[in-house]
Amino acid sequence: MKKKIKKVNAAILIIGNEILSGRTQDKNVIFLANWLNSKCGISVNEVRIIPDVEKVIIENILYLSKKFKYVFTTGGIGPTHDDITAQSISRAFKVKYEYHKEAYAILEKYYGKKKFNDGRKKMAKMPRGAKLIYNPSSAAPGFIIKNVLSLPGVPLILNSMIENCKIYLTQGAKIYSKTLNLYTVESNISKGLGEIQKKYKKYVDIGSYPFFRLGRIGVAVVTRSVSQTKLKKLNDELIKLVKLKKIKILNI
Amino acid sequence: MKKKIKKVNAAILIIGNEILSGRTQDKNVIFLANWLNSKCGISVNEVRIIPDVEKVIIENILYLSKKFKYVFTTGGIGPTHDDITAQSISRAFKVKYEYHKEAYAILEKYYGKKKFNDGRKKMAKMPRGAKLIYNPSSAAPGFIIKNVLSLPGVPLILNSMIENCKIYLTQGAKIYSKTLNLYTVESNISKGLGEIQKKYKKYVDIGSYPFFRLGRIGVAVVTRSVSQTKLKKLNDELIKLVKLKKIKILNI
Repeated sequence: MKKKIKKVNAAILIIGNEILSGRTQDKNVIFLANWLNSKCGISVNEVRIIPDVEKVIIENILYLSKKFKYVFTTGGIGPTHDDITAQSISRAFKVKYEYHKEAYAILEKYYGKKKFNDGRKKMAKMPRGAKLIYNPSSAAPGFIIKNVLSLPGVPLILNSMIENCKIYLTQGAKIYSKTLNLYTVESNISKGLGEIQKKYKKYVDIGSYPFFRLGRIGVAVVTRSVSQTKLKKLNDELIKLVKLKKIKILNI
Repeated sequence: MKKKIKKVNAAILIIGNEILSGRTQDKNVIFLANWLNSKCGISVNEVRIIPDVEKVIIENILYLSKKFKYVFTTGGIGPTHDDITAQSISRAFKVKYEYHKEAYAILEKYYGKKKFNDGRKKMAKMPRGAKLIYNPSSAAPGFIIKNVLSLPGVPLILNSMIENCKIYLTQGAKIYSKTLNLYTVESNISKGLGEIQKKYKKYVDIGSYPFFRLGRIGVAVVTRSVSQTKLKKLNDELIKLVKLKKIKILNI
């Protein structure tokens, strides 16, 4: 991984009718977002879920790759007719969609010459100039071209490949986070929170999220910043506010 | 609900830093997609997850509300400083952001005059002209303005309100779906599937999804169509293909 710079962002593009139809619960967004945040200091600023339609994939690849430092796509790099991600990215970047020599060799070795049929060969086809993201779980590699990293949709396989993305990423500043779990309701602290947020607007993001636990309701106040000092200062003010209101803190 | 027309689509806009940061697993996409499909014949064609940033919300509301028949937003309609959905939608549509009389009355009654503080009052503020989506679980209503329906982010509350969206929606043609679970690998059927898909391109969508079950791998072939006849015909062809290949069918 390359040297740290201040803020690095990314978008995730989930390609797959099965998520849009409600058939499948997406699990890749939470996994990728956590990994990028905690391991690379990269914030995910936008996620899009789109169908397996070439025109739509092309539009989104072009838009997101211009707007964000990295784009992670998931899905559509398998052997069937509805797997059109690699082909669509080739069209988007106006490069040839062709066999990647090394990917071809990896897959041929994995399946054996006899069982290396057309469907499996398709998984070696990529945009010209792509570099491989190795797959320790089921051989078929992902790839990176320009700032777009393409990974498979099956969570178990994606998870197994994620560390192999690291060599292609510039690391951002570590993002620190604290959570304060309070036995109160949001409206009880909303005014105070708003004032504190205003004061630290540039440095810290505050989110507040209601929760239900053991029959009681509460609020998790989540603060995030690249500055540990500012984060601590803000949290000290938060605790003052909470004590003033005589709110029970579950954990710090 | 109004009379049936052929195809009705929608987009979902998830507003919330907690999903983008990987803190929270989104559960609203799968719930909304299933409900819209099965209860309303409405297909979800795009999902976006964006941060609690006014400019970003406005851009997305304007874009999606032009492109799709309906837009469902989730999140950002609570009492705290990071709840800016209603305000941002007002700006997007250039209407006043003000107290909705009925919403104000509902909330005042629910909390009682004494406990109806500023945070809670904020939940009665909406774009001028909005109509209410009633909330049987925690009182604070959602709203619809133009073709944008705004719901809360907490899944339990959202789920309790969903039936109250129905009066505002035009129903689409029912979407039928069949799933064929096969003990095979995708590459074994990809060629045949591709040919069948080509033949039925206009009428039926075919998706194929690998699964792992009891230590064996398989493929779920999911077919979806508004025509029950075409769906049956295509599935008959699929079964022929599968039998020819001597693939075991787990269920039809």
